[in-house]
Amino acid sequence: MTEPKSKNIVWHQSTVTRAEREAISGHRGCTVWLTGLSGSGKSTVANLLEKALWERGVRSYVLDGDNVRHGLNKDLGFSPKDRTENIRRIGEVAALFTDAGVVNVTAFISPYRADRDLVRKVQAEGNFIEVYVKCDLDECEKRDPKGLYKKARAGEIPEFTGISAPYEAPDNAELVVDTTGQTPEQSLAVILRYLETKAYIPAV
Amino acid sequence: MTEPKSKNIVWHQSTVTRAEREAISGHRGCTVWLTGLSGSGKSTVANLLEKALWERGVRSYVLDGDNVRHGLNKDLGFSPKDRTENIRRIGEVAALFTDAGVVNVTAFISPYRADRDLVRKVQAEGNFIEVYVKCDLDECEKRDPKGLYKKARAGEIPEFTGISAPYEAPDNAELVVDTTGQTPEQSLAVILRYLETKAYIPAV
Repeated sequence: MTEPKSKNIVWHQSTVTRAEREAISGHRGCTVWLTGLSGSGKSTVANLLEKALWERGVRSYVLDGDNVRHGLNKDLGFSPKDRTENIRRIGEVAALFTDAGVVNVTAFISPYRADRDLVRKVQAEGNFIEVYVKCDLDECEKRDPKGLYKKARAGEIPEFTGISAPYEAPDNAELVVDTTGQTPEQSLAVILRYLETKAYIPAV
Repeated sequence: MTEPKSKNIVWHQSTVTRAEREAISGHRGCTVWLTGLSGSGKSTVANLLEKALWERGVRSYVLDGDNVRHGLNKDLGFSPKDRTENIRRIGEVAALFTDAGVVNVTAFISPYRADRDLVRKVQAEGNFIEVYVKCDLDECEKRDPKGLYKKARAGEIPEFTGISAPYEAPDNAELVVDTTGQTPEQSLAVILRYLETKAYIPAV
């Protein structure tokens, strides 16, 4: 759906522009969209990034797949349809945070390419930075920080990405960080350098 | 629904606390929830508030009923069920913005008391400031900035609040601003004074 269902609605122009909002903070807003298998390190990297940005005085906020499911998306499950709606809503919220001038970091498996392309298109070019948190399935399953792979192998979790549901790796992510062979801190450094180089945040 | 539908999810504690986020901005996050009839002045007051906060260096963001319906809630109409889901989602997004340290201002009719009570409960005590933007129906209908009352009277808009759908006025709003008899600037002053007095923002 691309047109709103409801009629008689008008787009209100805010009296404060995004550029004005960004000016009082000294950095831009954008979405750093982490995608990858469960156990690939998305949450770890997201939290490291939030901490590093905070230490630089940059306003950031982590939208976490697990956390959002307790609130905004608590009515959704893990069927393909619900996964798509889950990602759609998060993409819209991410766009609001970008518009508000906050570096928002999302840590969702977001396994479907089409869903990621949709949330990318919600925002203007350059606002959306897709980061593929790449990790071998074997390694993710070995880590299994929440014991989910074990449950999935035992058939206790249906539609588990990588086991009984597909993960479609990005074709054209802005960044790829391979956590199979590097530490979360190394992944962090790659992302920070990108944000600096593209002038989302001041270089230090 | 109070429990998430999906199992096997864990609440991740962010490595940066809300207090730490607020510390680098010098003000707190909170939700200023404006409720009132169409034409009561919610959007005008919201935009004035955003501008006034910006001039003080306070990070704020307006979540607007009309605007959100183009994105996050574009799948929703104006039936009672859809209105409730509309408000529920906005309440959850507002809570995320509060947690991010942003003064978020919502400008929704939000006609049902039960819906407003639900979104209030999403946030911890003191994070949610309900502001009743009070205005006589006659006056709203006279203003009719979007020509909606005229259409509603002509039967072109079903379930229009105040005409063919109820508006339940707040019993215990933190603030009431009566825009029938005062200017938007006077309403703004009342809200700013409240935010200062309760130390959400520094006094000037």
